[in-house]
Formats: sequence, C-alpha cells, structure tokens
Amino acid sequence: MTRRGPVIVLMEPQLGENIGAVARAMLNCGLDELRLVRPRDGWPSEKARAAASGADRVCDAARVFDSLDTAIGDLGFLVATSARPRGMVQRVVDARQGAALLHARAADGVATGVLFGPEATGLTNDDLTAADVILDIPLNPDFASLNIAQAVMIVAYEWYLGGRAGGGRARVGSDRSPPAAKGEILALFSHLEAELDAAEFFRNPKMRPTVVRNLRNALSRAGLSEAETRTLRGVVKALSHARKARARRE
Amino acid sequence: MTRRGPVIVLMEPQLGENIGAVARAMLNCGLDELRLVRPRDGWPSEKARAAASGADRVCDAARVFDSLDTAIGDLGFLVATSARPRGMVQRVVDARQGAALLHARAADGVATGVLFGPEATGLTNDDLTAADVILDIPLNPDFASLNIAQAVMIVAYEWYLGGRAGGGRARVGSDRSPPAAKGEILALFSHLEAELDAAEFFRNPKMRPTVVRNLRNALSRAGLSEAETRTLRGVVKALSHARKARARRE
Repeated sequence: MTRRGPVIVLMEPQLGENIGAVARAMLNCGLDELRLVRPRDGWPSEKARAAASGADRVCDAARVFDSLDTAIGDLGFLVATSARPRGMVQRVVDARQGAALLHARAADGVATGVLFGPEATGLTNDDLTAADVILDIPLNPDFASLNIAQAVMIVAYEWYLGGRAGGGRARVGSDRSPPAAKGEILALFSHLEAELDAAEFFRNPKMRPTVVRNLRNALSRAGLSEAETRTLRGVVKALSHARKARARRE
Repeated sequence: MTRRGPVIVLMEPQLGENIGAVARAMLNCGLDELRLVRPRDGWPSEKARAAASGADRVCDAARVFDSLDTAIGDLGFLVATSARPRGMVQRVVDARQGAALLHARAADGVATGVLFGPEATGLTNDDLTAADVILDIPLNPDFASLNIAQAVMIVAYEWYLGGRAGGGRARVGSDRSPPAAKGEILALFSHLEAELDAAEFFRNPKMRPTVVRNLRNALSRAGLSEAETRTLRGVVKALSHARKARARRE
C-alpha cells in the first residue's frame, strides 16, 4: 500500500474559508498537493490561510490553473466527486472504493487526483467527462448537501485509512501498459471532436454537447493506456485523412 | 443493523459556526439529536443557523445543559472522542470500530451518545471518565488538529455506513442485563467518592483528582449493567454503614 497521495483539485472554489478548510482536512490525512481552477476570489487568500489553522504549507504550495484541462493534464487517474451524475454513463464508486482505486493506481506508479466542484453547483456533466470514475459519497438522501471541506475530509480520511474495506486492491488495467495522462486523453477528445466538426458529424447543433459528453464518457470509462491513446489518435487521423483525400478526389 | 442514531453531545462548544456545521454534518448522515453543554456564546445562535445550511431542525431541537452529567444522564453507552487520552486506562477504538459498537448497543435497545470536546482544548481527562470507550480518529500524526465539525463528520459518516468494516458486530455485554444509564453510574461515582471522603480515604488531597479519575475509569471500563450498578451502590452503602456504626461504637 503506497502512501503517495492523490492531488486534490478544486474547480472554481468560491470561499477562501472553504479552501483553507480543505487544506487543513488534506493535511489531517497526509495529503499536501492542492490545485485550484479559477478560484473566484483570487489567490493567495488571507481567509484561506486563517481557516487552514496551520496547514500553511498546503496553501503555500497550492497551484492555480485557468482551466480544468491544464490542472489535470499530468494525471493518469482521476476521480471526480459528484452527488448527482445525472444521465452519465460512468462508473460510480463510494468513498471507500474510490480510496482503494487511488491506492491501487498509485501503487502502479500512476499520478492520481480527486476533483471537487464549486460549492453551490458541483461539477458539471462536462467536468465529469475526463474522470475515470465518479465518487458519490453515501449520505442521507433527504439532506445530502455536503460542505466542500467535509467532502474532502471524507475522501481524504478514506484514503488515509488505505481504502482497507474497498473489497481488496482494484486491478483496473494494472497489467496493461501505463495509463494515458489526462492531457493525452483530452488531446484525443479535442482531435476527435475537431475532426467530427469538420466532417459535419453533428447534424443537430443543439445535440452536439450531449453527443460530445457521451463520447468522452465512453472513452473515459475505457481507462485508456498511453499506447491505446496513441493508437486512437492514429485512428482519428487516418479516418480524417481518408475523408480529406476523398474530398480532394471528388 | 439499527438506524437509531447516537445523540451528539458537544462539551462547551465555542463558535456558533462550528455548532451549525456540526448540525449540518449530523443531518448529512441521518443524525438529528444534538445536545450542548454550556455553549460559550449562548443558544440559540444565528451564526449556527447560517452555518447549518438548512439543517434547521437539528438546531431547533438542540437541547442545552449546564453540566455534562445531566447531558449524558439518560444514555447507556457513551463514546468520547479524544486525540490524546493521556495516561487513561480506557479502551480506545477508531471511528470504524466506534461506529460498530454504537450500532451493536443500539441494536440491544441501549441509548447511545458520542461526546466531543471544546474546539481549543478537547475533553479533559475528567470528562472522559464517564465514557465506555474512547474514540481516537486515525490521522496524520504530524497534523492531527481536527476541526470539530470534521470530527463529527467522520464519526457520523462511519455510523451512517453502519460500521461495516469494524470487525463485525461488537458484543460488549449484550447478553447481560441492560446497561446502567450514565446517570446511575455517575450517582454511583458520587456516592462512592463522598463516602471515601468521609472515610478520609484520600490521604493526599493533591492526589485526589487522579485517584478519582482512575477509579471512575476502571468502573467505566466494566460496562456496568443496571443490576450491577445497584449492587455496587449497595456495597458502598453497606461498607460506609459498617464504618459509621463502628464510629458510633467508638
């Protein structure tokens, strides 16, 4: 069981107090790498530092990104937290299972991360498409609105315990070639979608977002390796090339 | 597995915001009975209500007590949270084991509770003496200072999950007569100590607090039943009576 912890990524966090409380909860559980995507009130934050109650080194080392894609680009396994993955065809795990998966992937040398959404709204379905699995913390269905620092606490606590009760070590793809970094996966998505646009694949523009999401989810679920991702890039390129060549001939 | 949840008891909570965050965390996990012992800033609290983010019914139903003894008097099984039970001879469990014990006792019809200390200082050794077990949440030893609402969250979350991984149902005393209510236990303690004072048992007054604590801890560890508690009251009474009678004869 490795102690190499996941990166915690906060998408558009709103309150400095919450970011500080997240930093404190992280360090309580031995996690220290925090990434912030477009924090609403800027960074650094005095309110965050006060709420961190001594977890200064987590705040000091926090990195700010202007897009989710860049924030997760180097990660090979991403867990996204969501209370309501509506209409998404993705694998959903609870916090304990999620912790077991994080340990298993880290043991295989994969850089891992956990993504949390903005306080008021949570992650969008688009944010979720880059995730390998969705983590849904089991809670009272009549009052499931969880403070973001509390959500981080539970995930970090389960990680700290080692995902001991997660049904054993998950073995997702560990006997295959290394997983693709998220940056490669996202490049594959973009490449594919640009070519689909060029090919006028999206007949109904209103449906484009839904179709793109479904495609991304399907590919994310696959847990693509580096080699597979390269292969798929080649597939997209080859198909588009054939189309372009045909267009030239016609 | 019963869903009858433990009472959450906060000893001298300081910040209304924290009490509200505790209420929210409780309701997230289906717990709704909150007791406050001497809240520093009074009760009710607007700050608590704001921080509860909709868990109003937990705040509205919260009861205030002016002593720990009265707050826990009707409980039959008490878990006290402490990061540092220094020099205390009591049973220490982690959050998962604690949750399993709470479920097991509740399944036996016992009223249960979990006690949390003040934010800055935690519970005193004296506060801990009435507890059946001490719950120590496993955390990063280099940064274990946990926000009180986070501590409640972890305990409530583990309770909500049912203490599933706690090594099975704990069977502490479940085949014996019903456990004594804490009020009966505390009355036994007081009775015993008054008689010990009268008997000039405490030769060194400076050592009295330590000796009292050790006695209380030993008796708390026993998990006394109602019947046993009555018996012990009788023992104390009988012994004192013999001493008093001898005193009269002399």
